Amino acid sequence: MLTKQKQDFAKWYNEVILSADLAEYSPVKGCMIIKPYGYAIWENIQKNLDNEIKNLGVKNVYFPLFIPEKFLKKEAEHIKGFAPQVAWITQGGNKKLQERLAVRPTSETIINDAFKKWIQSYRDLPLKINQWANIVRWEMRPRLFLRTLEFLWQEGHTAHKTEKEADEMAKTALKMYHDFVQNWLGIYCVSGKKTEAEKFAGALYTLSVESLMKDGKALQMGTSHQLGQNFSKSFGIQFLDEKGKKNYVWQTSWGVSTRMIGGLVMAHGDDGGLILPPRIAPYQIVIIPISQDKSVKNYILKIEKILKNIRFYIDWNRQQTPGWKFHEWELKGVPVRIEIGPKEVKAGKITFVLRNALKREIVELKQFKPEKILNDLQKQLLEKSKKFTEDNTHQVRSYQEFKDTIKKKGGFIKAFWCGDEKCEKKIQQETKATIRCIVKDNKLGGCIKCGKEAKSEVLFAKAY
Amino acid sequence: MLTKQKQDFAKWYNEVILSADLAEYSPVKGCMIIKPYGYAIWENIQKNLDNEIKNLGVKNVYFPLFIPEKFLKKEAEHIKGFAPQVAWITQGGNKKLQERLAVRPTSETIINDAFKKWIQSYRDLPLKINQWANIVRWEMRPRLFLRTLEFLWQEGHTAHKTEKEADEMAKTALKMYHDFVQNWLGIYCVSGKKTEAEKFAGALYTLSVESLMKDGKALQMGTSHQLGQNFSKSFGIQFLDEKGKKNYVWQTSWGVSTRMIGGLVMAHGDDGGLILPPRIAPYQIVIIPISQDKSVKNYILKIEKILKNIRFYIDWNRQQTPGWKFHEWELKGVPVRIEIGPKEVKAGKITFVLRNALKREIVELKQFKPEKILNDLQKQLLEKSKKFTEDNTHQVRSYQEFKDTIKKKGGFIKAFWCGDEKCEKKIQQETKATIRCIVKDNKLGGCIKCGKEAKSEVLFAKAY
Repeated sequence: MLTKQKQDFAKWYNEVILSADLAEYSPVKGCMIIKPYGYAIWENIQKNLDNEIKNLGVKNVYFPLFIPEKFLKKEAEHIKGFAPQVAWITQGGNKKLQERLAVRPTSETIINDAFKKWIQSYRDLPLKINQWANIVRWEMRPRLFLRTLEFLWQEGHTAHKTEKEADEMAKTALKMYHDFVQNWLGIYCVSGKKTEAEKFAGALYTLSVESLMKDGKALQMGTSHQLGQNFSKSFGIQFLDEKGKKNYVWQTSWGVSTRMIGGLVMAHGDDGGLILPPRIAPYQIVIIPISQDKSVKNYILKIEKILKNIRFYIDWNRQQTPGWKFHEWELKGVPVRIEIGPKEVKAGKITFVLRNALKREIVELKQFKPEKILNDLQKQLLEKSKKFTEDNTHQVRSYQEFKDTIKKKGGFIKAFWCGDEKCEKKIQQETKATIRCIVKDNKLGGCIKCGKEAKSEVLFAKAY
Repeated sequence: MLTKQKQDFAKWYNEVILSADLAEYSPVKGCMIIKPYGYAIWENIQKNLDNEIKNLGVKNVYFPLFIPEKFLKKEAEHIKGFAPQVAWITQGGNKKLQERLAVRPTSETIINDAFKKWIQSYRDLPLKINQWANIVRWEMRPRLFLRTLEFLWQEGHTAHKTEKEADEMAKTALKMYHDFVQNWLGIYCVSGKKTEAEKFAGALYTLSVESLMKDGKALQMGTSHQLGQNFSKSFGIQFLDEKGKKNYVWQTSWGVSTRMIGGLVMAHGDDGGLILPPRIAPYQIVIIPISQDKSVKNYILKIEKILKNIRFYIDWNRQQTPGWKFHEWELKGVPVRIEIGPKEVKAGKITFVLRNALKREIVELKQFKPEKILNDLQKQLLEKSKKFTEDNTHQVRSYQEFKDTIKKKGGFIKAFWCGDEKCEKKIQQETKATIRCIVKDNKLGGCIKCGKEAKSEVLFAKAY
């Protein structure tokens, strides 16, 4: 039995991931092994997000895992941000290296070195590429999927003629993530700009997609950075414009990672285990034969024909009882379970249970419409997630109320902020809440911390 | 203009890869940047081979990039073989590591450490997993796609109850590669066992798929290893059999890599550049408008409808002449080029050129059957590759003839071998030819080197 969410959410999270066979820790501290069931979820995310990325006219490439130290150092903010997290290669094939190599913590620098050669004229712009790759950031407090020394991600990198074009690209990528998280993962999210303190090391500004987990903490699901001309100036990426004038390109980068799987677990799961959205679930339907009679087998053959567009699995395992299997597939979060025994065969019916509701339904075989059921389920998950987020988004009038709310309720707190990093830091020190994103510029209020005229309305939350 | 193949094949190879925009060297010595056109080929390989792998009941997973040094050392032959090629992490996040970590040169060891936990009983067997990953082997003489410090591959790893089952798995994986190379890449190949000297470090035996390149050198396209119980004994992977007895599992591993793209280039390419097999080509058809008239545009809209199941590209670029584009897309190896100008519009015809033949054909629009043309092309490439391999497979009667043939003609040499590593080594030293694979056991002849009774008939070749 799993630990209850209310009792210890972090423990529940770990237990679900291990017992549903998504992943496990490896003997290399901080690294994880993604097991078949977890990797199948990643493959579904990857395949469908890859389509969206390609629809933006972005092309896939592959850049080296290793980055020369001097590249990382070219953009001052960038190296400052990433240096404490870098794994270094100092030895190759029995020889000590003259210059050590970083294992990529992100690829802006090595990609920009290539962009410098690839970009000559305005005709080479916009340049839009993406790669699916493994990333290493030295991590001292690892948590499966959420924070691991190595993780899998995609990173988009683009170069543009103007600031406006790069602004638009950063927004477009963010919208793609926002829609993907809502429409595929069924998780409601809010988008906005990060504060200066929270932006990507080397960016002009960072946009992010944030979702609320069931324990009231926020998870950053994806980020999109307007890099300005910071990297193009460090790396000397210039183009000749239509008038023959040299200009530095404007750039963006944006990414999501295997962390999204952690989000899936924490946004939908319950005390019984995972609840997977149908569009991403490795199996959308599982069929549990109540007996192994010939008539049951033949009847299931008939059902298989109705499921030809569905990812399904028939659990014929003779070692386990149907009851054990119900429990197991609930734990694994399969959206729909079908139970077929002699009773169903005789009546020409189908018994099924929706993972989200855990209520048994019985219908005539002819009236069983799996596509519709799965579509409805997908929508319900998003609605539920939206309602949960709205119910747990609080407006507060005083800093005392802020502190009480964060402590007792968690969730998002919408509040005014003066824009001063000192207030931001103090709030974090006192409450552990950080500004997840700036919702909008709004001066019609006082800063929740210092009371001075606000600059913007922001969302606070404790976050992963 | 490209260097001619006959003049300098190695130079031609490099020029084609760079000018067709498949890949380029990175500033990290030995690593490559796979560019969009090259990566699109890899994606097509990956997608289709992944289907074949899944059809064998193999499930995808992801294991860590880093391997503790002590793991690599557990299997004695394995570390001996790989130690000179390993890149070592000695520092993580500003701290020196207590035990250095290898960047995976292959993943048997870290996977077997997990198998030890995953396998308890015969019911857990067979266990069949695969991962798509990046691999690092320190390489001092890099060549794009063929030998790079980092490359992309898939590695299958399986565990079985019996030696026979593992034998069969190793054979099945090899057959999958053999069929894939022939049916998808259109490259003829021969399969066989490797000699003891050439087998994988730690394997019982290695099977390989070998193809002949246009310069008469062989390229190993894929390998499949029967690992015996070497790793299971080193890592202690035991299972309880049906009778309650503990046994060590029998294992296999098998892989192919981005090296296959190098094979595509060298097996099919000509002095004009790449020739891509339709099933793998990023674009199967390119349309070149001879003018940008409205009537041409409308006519091309009509053609697009015929191409709805085809990967095609319309080159509307106004900066370049049609002649420049013909040359460019020939270089990039697109199987079929369609040329549409006012002449075609007026006559209701279509002009097309097959990359493989470079002969202009004109047919009525209605009679243009792209699927059939592409299917025929795919078959022709394999037939051509088969004929080339047969024409360049030589039988020799004396060692002198062997030496002359290798020097003047290249290709495969089918010869008898006594089975002694000394003869194998001497032949390599004197001619640079190695035994690519053992064709069959056959004692009815004398060793090509020492004249003693043969053990088997083998294929020799100079190889990449």
